[in-house]
Amino acid sequence: MATESQAAIRFGIIGAADIARKLSRAITLAPNAVLSAVASRSLEKATNFAKANNFPPDAKVYGSYEALLDDKDIDAVYLPLPTSMHVKWAVFVAQKKKHLLMEKPVALNVAEFDVILKACEENGVQLMDGTMWVHNPRTAQMKEFVSDPQRFGQLRTMHSCFSFAGDAEFLKNDIRVKPDLDGLGALGDAGWYGIRSILWANDYELPKTVIAMHGPVLNEAGVILSCGASLHWDDGRVATFSCSFLANMTMDITATGTNGSLQLHDFIIPFREEEASYFTNTRCFFNDLVTGWVPLPSEHVVTTDIPQEACMVREFSRLVANIKNGSKPEQKWPIISRKTQLIIDAVKTSIERGFEPIEIKW
Amino acid sequence: MATESQAAIRFGIIGAADIARKLSRAITLAPNAVLSAVASRSLEKATNFAKANNFPPDAKVYGSYEALLDDKDIDAVYLPLPTSMHVKWAVFVAQKKKHLLMEKPVALNVAEFDVILKACEENGVQLMDGTMWVHNPRTAQMKEFVSDPQRFGQLRTMHSCFSFAGDAEFLKNDIRVKPDLDGLGALGDAGWYGIRSILWANDYELPKTVIAMHGPVLNEAGVILSCGASLHWDDGRVATFSCSFLANMTMDITATGTNGSLQLHDFIIPFREEEASYFTNTRCFFNDLVTGWVPLPSEHVVTTDIPQEACMVREFSRLVANIKNGSKPEQKWPIISRKTQLIIDAVKTSIERGFEPIEIKW
Repeated sequence: MATESQAAIRFGIIGAADIARKLSRAITLAPNAVLSAVASRSLEKATNFAKANNFPPDAKVYGSYEALLDDKDIDAVYLPLPTSMHVKWAVFVAQKKKHLLMEKPVALNVAEFDVILKACEENGVQLMDGTMWVHNPRTAQMKEFVSDPQRFGQLRTMHSCFSFAGDAEFLKNDIRVKPDLDGLGALGDAGWYGIRSILWANDYELPKTVIAMHGPVLNEAGVILSCGASLHWDDGRVATFSCSFLANMTMDITATGTNGSLQLHDFIIPFREEEASYFTNTRCFFNDLVTGWVPLPSEHVVTTDIPQEACMVREFSRLVANIKNGSKPEQKWPIISRKTQLIIDAVKTSIERGFEPIEIKW
Repeated sequence: MATESQAAIRFGIIGAADIARKLSRAITLAPNAVLSAVASRSLEKATNFAKANNFPPDAKVYGSYEALLDDKDIDAVYLPLPTSMHVKWAVFVAQKKKHLLMEKPVALNVAEFDVILKACEENGVQLMDGTMWVHNPRTAQMKEFVSDPQRFGQLRTMHSCFSFAGDAEFLKNDIRVKPDLDGLGALGDAGWYGIRSILWANDYELPKTVIAMHGPVLNEAGVILSCGASLHWDDGRVATFSCSFLANMTMDITATGTNGSLQLHDFIIPFREEEASYFTNTRCFFNDLVTGWVPLPSEHVVTTDIPQEACMVREFSRLVANIKNGSKPEQKWPIISRKTQLIIDAVKTSIERGFEPIEIKW
């Protein structure tokens, strides 16, 4: 029989959002996690969600978020609520000593996120944001590549983009275009990933300055539908990203180092769940007549045992289990979240100030 | 027996530059062109060049550029000289009624290029720059894709990059790092391609403004070794490019339209000469659980009958043959050259003015 410390981490989900269906499956697939409860503002909705998402027969359904938070048999909460509700509910989650896996963007701004961070620290709970792709085994392989002084060298330039074409219904009614719900719009939703990928490739070293690109598109309510920015480090490294709700699905990374290059076209959600690929080249140059490349670049295929979101749940649950065994919460993840949010804030400020360079201060 | 108008176009090469080896082969491979002469400042160098590059036995070698230009049996001149020498020699070529295929960047600035343009117009000769990739059959296929309102829609964002790692010898002695030779440095050499690709994808519609990225790297003589810029159109389209002599070889295009996306990693020089590929997706979206893409993107492989530089020579020679048959020079190519140079100038000006937006005026 498993001792409590080896037992699966018991998850409660607050809010029956669309994305929570994916996370429910991920919790089911993660070997060290179990779906214990779901709460919605209506008991019926929670019940239907649990049924539709293969919750175990003994899982509980709640008609209020508070009721779930009072449940002593829940270790961790997945929070897929709109960003504007994060600070309130994340703090409640922490105060109830539940570990917190929360959707991105983590907050409307860093000041709000710091309130969440403080609550998590004071209550000794783990905090992690729901950026799934960083947990894909492909990402670990790519990280080895970009960290390799021989194969990649020092990063010099990088471009990352994420766009998808919201339909008329999305652009009118989705929470991500509503200033009172996910007020950061495409910057918070899609730009989050581009920014994270840039930080990831830079070993999470913050840039010195961030400058928004001219030409962001805002809706009538002032929510960003598309924008871009450049990030600059003192040593001349430059990274750019673009994000949009107004263009066809694209999620590319091109990262170029002094010795190597990395490219992929599906960094956030791999084309297929079971495997994911990326391209690299190292010290490529032209052949003598400049009619081809030597050596030829390589494509690398990485298979996944469980989907990347289940890898995320597994890692989060591992950290929670460690805490139950007396370890401290892992600081790496909230620090990465905060850095990502800092850049989001800087891009927004740069847009508001007419594309001024914004200095990044931790 | 071929009449004169159907005969192969007779090429003279002025300057035994490295790149001229590639063009010599291209002229040999193009069905409507023939290598007739090469001139260098030394007769020995010209003779060696002709021998090493499979010139026909009856080809002539000259120890001065002027002598080649006086040769009545030459129809067209390929000009691979350093950019700072373009205006002088291109004007001579035109005045001698030779058609002109010239290396890029076409001039140190648009004012200089306009002198060349005027000479070509006054003398009724064809002008084309040596941007080879636009003549690859792959490029024509990709153009069909990005021009298709259903498969691609309206372009929204684009990123293009070209870098290669110059070694210590290159960074010290190559003509492309010398202010008095190819004074536009990486911007003129590598940035030319990124700018051209952006214009190409925009159907050669000039942007409204161009803004250089912060953080260009210049050598001690003030020559650009790496830089980037963003191009902006009134309808919100944004394109970015980066170019560098200081980073591993990378030549990516990511172009995103309202309905489709295009990507490739070898747009300037295909990995292999015989075939070239690119990726597209149209109206891709996530599957229901957001765990994969529907439909999956496609890779397209295009085979080439002759190398892209030979396609370029073939097209140029076709236009020259048309002129011999009474047609006017094709205006399209010099216009495209001028637009590319205009953007080069704007990026340079933007850097000089502290990254100010530069308005583009034709």
